[in-house]
Amino acid sequence: MSRIDYNLKSIRAIAFDVDGVLSPSTIPMSAEGVPMRMANLKDGYAMHVAAKAGIRLAIITGADVPAIPGRFDVIGVQDIFMGVSDKLPVYEKWLKDNGLEASETAYMGDDIPDIPVLRRCGLAVAPRDAAAEVKAVARFVTGADGGYGAARELLEEVLRAKGLWPAHSEAYGW
Amino acid sequence: MSRIDYNLKSIRAIAFDVDGVLSPSTIPMSAEGVPMRMANLKDGYAMHVAAKAGIRLAIITGADVPAIPGRFDVIGVQDIFMGVSDKLPVYEKWLKDNGLEASETAYMGDDIPDIPVLRRCGLAVAPRDAAAEVKAVARFVTGADGGYGAARELLEEVLRAKGLWPAHSEAYGW
Amino acid sequence: MSRIDYNLKSIRAIAFDVDGVLSPSTIPMSAEGVPMRMANLKDGYAMHVAAKAGIRLAIITGADVPAIPGRFDVIGVQDIFMGVSDKLPVYEKWLKDNGLEASETAYMGDDIPDIPVLRRCGLAVAPRDAAAEVKAVARFVTGADGGYGAARELLEEVLRAKGLWPAHSEAYGW
Amino acid sequence: MSRIDYNLKSIRAIAFDVDGVLSPSTIPMSAEGVPMRMANLKDGYAMHVAAKAGIRLAIITGADVPAIPGRFDVIGVQDIFMGVSDKLPVYEKWLKDNGLEASETAYMGDDIPDIPVLRRCGLAVAPRDAAAEVKAVARFVTGADGGYGAARELLEEVLRAKGLWPAHSEAYGW
Repeated sequence: MSRIDYNLKSIRAIAFDVDGVLSPSTIPMSAEGVPMRMANLKDGYAMHVAAKAGIRLAIITGADVPAIPGRFDVIGVQDIFMGVSDKLPVYEKWLKDNGLEASETAYMGDDIPDIPVLRRCGLAVAPRDAAAEVKAVARFVTGADGGYGAARELLEEVLRAKGLWPAHSEAYGW
Repeated sequence: MSRIDYNLKSIRAIAFDVDGVLSPSTIPMSAEGVPMRMANLKDGYAMHVAAKAGIRLAIITGADVPAIPGRFDVIGVQDIFMGVSDKLPVYEKWLKDNGLEASETAYMGDDIPDIPVLRRCGLAVAPRDAAAEVKAVARFVTGADGGYGAARELLEEVLRAKGLWPAHSEAYGW
Repeated sequence: MSRIDYNLKSIRAIAFDVDGVLSPSTIPMSAEGVPMRMANLKDGYAMHVAAKAGIRLAIITGADVPAIPGRFDVIGVQDIFMGVSDKLPVYEKWLKDNGLEASETAYMGDDIPDIPVLRRCGLAVAPRDAAAEVKAVARFVTGADGGYGAARELLEEVLRAKGLWPAHSEAYGW
Repeated sequence: MSRIDYNLKSIRAIAFDVDGVLSPSTIPMSAEGVPMRMANLKDGYAMHVAAKAGIRLAIITGADVPAIPGRFDVIGVQDIFMGVSDKLPVYEKWLKDNGLEASETAYMGDDIPDIPVLRRCGLAVAPRDAAAEVKAVARFVTGADGGYGAARELLEEVLRAKGLWPAHSEAYGW
């Protein structure tokens, strides 16, 4: 039985915000003041496993920097939407283009601009250090902070429920 | 009711120190030994909302590096004073140039050089990990450390008191 | 008496995974999205002492970046295997090439792809923040997280058991 | 009364190790695998105050990178010894060249190679996360980890005991 009160077997696709979700809220800046995103490699392993197993993965973020496709294309994230100021229409188009029902998708976000998608998607997830309003609309709040393994928790729960989590490394080398 | 014992509705402008306030006390250095500031993106979202809502934002810092305007100009900080060794005269001039009363401003600082401004401003705020003497003169000490969401706490309290905190993302996309 | 239930005197060689073991799970990325590994310098000191004392050290990692040999060659790691997707055959070949029995080696890993080697080696070790399945097969789980001194704990235990841990700095300067 | 059981008024000079003392034990690496030191800016403020007040400051480190003089020259550290594998002779020469008695100096170190100097100096100090053997020979163990304000604690105690800690920022701007 999962910690998440949702029919996880029905999840076919998962979308993520980046800042505060796949990357921590506090991050280094370049000499010019551009925030430099960080990555959690256990999140990365689980995203890779999910992509290989046929779960469609997406990123919907206000950020617009080469590091995001540079990191997540390799891992298997098929749909990367950057520079997005209004996330709901992008999410709706993503559903439509991929023949997905909202109930078949999970979305993970941490701040106010994520709330409309969190309200619309099937399974709304927030990291432990998300804004209070975000956690209030989330069905599952992870034990880890954003960027420190929060995505891993969601992915493991979904993959285990679907029988897709590898029992050992033979399933998906890295 | 706010956690802060102050007439928050009267706050029209907020000034911040950078090191230990908007950026953590412990940060990376470049190969040449220049401290590389970090940023908290939840602080950044709240600063952006505040600037859009007409709160005047300033930075008064001893640091003098391109990353500071590079990051905070974009977010909407209108007044950035760098390389400041004596902060009080700069603060006084900022008040005068913008027709502000000290009581209409908040200031957030973390170390000894911030004390004169903290004593002079209306609402003196310190991060949890500020120097003991600084916390002793602060009216509000945040629950978060500097650079890890301390500014967000202050901004949310002020914006909520003024009815300017967005209920959802339609107010201010990012 | 050691905290580790194993004949530590028999350990002649130790192999490490990098991500989540010698480097933390959450790390910065370059502007292009390449994860930038971090290092713990207390781990490094103990690796240097171990190498000088004749313990054979190896790295077996899926990562393939110049920072890994750049850092660990200097410290005395003799065998560095990068870009490894299936770790067990590499570990078996390492044993054979160096005339080692599995029981004479320790391996430290943190995630699913490490499990086959952890099951095969003599002393299986996992950092505190390893995946649950990895900790389940480890004989020793360190008190520190990966990248934050986990390797130091293992190395100290082995070197102390063998009488090779320096009593003071005269043994091995740095 | 100080937390430190030592005649702090007699301290005329303080020497520091870098890794694990002024910079954290876990730090980023460059693309080539060179550890990139970090800095705590509250440590830096207190070092600057101490230098201005006439306390002689030194660094004795095994590291040899431009970031160390680049950062600490500016702050007022007069004696920077890098690439030191055997610290005691360097410390002895530093005493002699500056007409210092060992009892007039404090030294702060975190790992095995620091032990000979810690045994020889007047006031031996270790950060909270120092090696156990180092803490065993230290007269004062800070509440903060190395690189996260440990040096600040020592400097404040010494400067307060000598009546040199600034009551407000007018003393030493930054």
